Amino acid sequence: MIGIDWGTTTLRAYRLAADGTILTRRETPRGILSIEPGGFPDALRAVVGDWIAAGVDRVMVCGMAGSRHGWQEAPYLPCPADLAGLAAATVTVPFPDARVRIVPGLSWRDPHGVPDVMRGEETQILGAALGTEAATVCLPGSHSKWASLAGGAVTRFTTHLSGEAFAALSQHTILARMVDAHAPYDAVGFARGVARAKQGGGLLHHLFGLRAAALFDEVGEDEGTSFLSGLLIGHEVAAALEAGVAPPVILIGAERLTSRYAAALDAFGIPHTMAEPDAAARGLHLLAARLD
Amino acid sequence: MIGIDWGTTTLRAYRLAADGTILTRRETPRGILSIEPGGFPDALRAVVGDWIAAGVDRVMVCGMAGSRHGWQEAPYLPCPADLAGLAAATVTVPFPDARVRIVPGLSWRDPHGVPDVMRGEETQILGAALGTEAATVCLPGSHSKWASLAGGAVTRFTTHLSGEAFAALSQHTILARMVDAHAPYDAVGFARGVARAKQGGGLLHHLFGLRAAALFDEVGEDEGTSFLSGLLIGHEVAAALEAGVAPPVILIGAERLTSRYAAALDAFGIPHTMAEPDAAARGLHLLAARLD
Repeated sequence: MIGIDWGTTTLRAYRLAADGTILTRRETPRGILSIEPGGFPDALRAVVGDWIAAGVDRVMVCGMAGSRHGWQEAPYLPCPADLAGLAAATVTVPFPDARVRIVPGLSWRDPHGVPDVMRGEETQILGAALGTEAATVCLPGSHSKWASLAGGAVTRFTTHLSGEAFAALSQHTILARMVDAHAPYDAVGFARGVARAKQGGGLLHHLFGLRAAALFDEVGEDEGTSFLSGLLIGHEVAAALEAGVAPPVILIGAERLTSRYAAALDAFGIPHTMAEPDAAARGLHLLAARLD
Repeated sequence: MIGIDWGTTTLRAYRLAADGTILTRRETPRGILSIEPGGFPDALRAVVGDWIAAGVDRVMVCGMAGSRHGWQEAPYLPCPADLAGLAAATVTVPFPDARVRIVPGLSWRDPHGVPDVMRGEETQILGAALGTEAATVCLPGSHSKWASLAGGAVTRFTTHLSGEAFAALSQHTILARMVDAHAPYDAVGFARGVARAKQGGGLLHHLFGLRAAALFDEVGEDEGTSFLSGLLIGHEVAAALEAGVAPPVILIGAERLTSRYAAALDAFGIPHTMAEPDAAARGLHLLAARLD
């Protein structure tokens, strides 16, 4: 089969053996933002047409290709949702020579009725947590996700705007004087930021405190950027823990980010593990196995 | 006497009678950012030279003119600080024909040792709280201040980056799709944002929740901007209350902002009052009365 993780800016394609082993990986910048309306079939063929011509006729697609602005909308499936539910909710799209299905995203409403959404992460979560009865899965990023798994189903999740907030606050507030988004990681500054997040006073106050500490030369030039990163990730972790987390926390994503979350979780005394790479490919394979 | 509130972008000048009555007000865009090094005496003369020529020889200056990048640095005075302490810490600057003194800003360290600073607000706070034994004073803005007064002294204060965070988040994250910084105030959206801030989950999660609610058409186009404003102000108020507030809260500032804080305080059930205008002029007069 072919697995496609079709995001906003990137398309990742996997050719998978019957047992789920990854035979070939391809990655292109043909995210959905670069595709004209109606252009999805041709874009798919351009990336994996040779695999289809070679006889692979099952294609499973997850990610933003199923959004309102993607190939075809696959409406959000409400939590709790497990592999069987997700597989049953996949949407078939017309495509010659192959059976192409799009995996829906998930939605959840908190006890106050406020909605949350994910699209693509559900497949990574189920792929990463295979065989785990209960777990918490964290996917750091611009919009970080924390999902709870129980009995093989995603039961609830929350999204945090941490990555985007870091970019906006570091470049477009007074903090820009002491923060350089391209500065190298500083473990001491990061730890100080996480430690600050564990104290009272609120994030908005802690943000100004970084400015004031710099005025008194109490945050080094090399520390400011990682301090802000630690402060935001620390607030995110604290909020996730407050909402309830079943350890261990499984971290999914690029090492550059997951290593920071690992350091923050250590500071909170929460055990964690790193997911194997290519969780999306494993999730797509598990979903395909539920289809005829 | 002459009172000068010399901020970053604006200079406000007051001619005051012996009893503190404001005789004349002037306002110019000659904030300290517009003044060349060494140019402060000439700038002062350009705005109030006629008053000095007419025989007024006491000039009290508060605000950023006392910062490192101002006329002359007036080092931060640590809290607790009262009128007598602030008056004694004023810094005299050379000026022909008049006795010119600059009021220092205040600093405070929270129980964790993290510093906070203000410059200019201390004069407004003492001017607004005259005759109040114990109070909490809130000055909304880019860098909102919450100060506690007891026994005529500012005992502690915290600054929150709420205003700058609103500008950065509303323009430079995915929220820009549903937020227009110039949209008219919407009381319903603001109240929804404040109510959300009172729920658990953390600010970073609440920010994404606004995006998700818009995806489900559960936040109207007219509501998004005021929702974000209410969310940030609500988180600020919640943090200030958690740190301890002695009601009533005295609000100082432009009605456009203080009315929003009043609405948020109502939602938290905290009594509040609005300060009389020109609190800085009253504070400068009170400080001058402590000098020979």
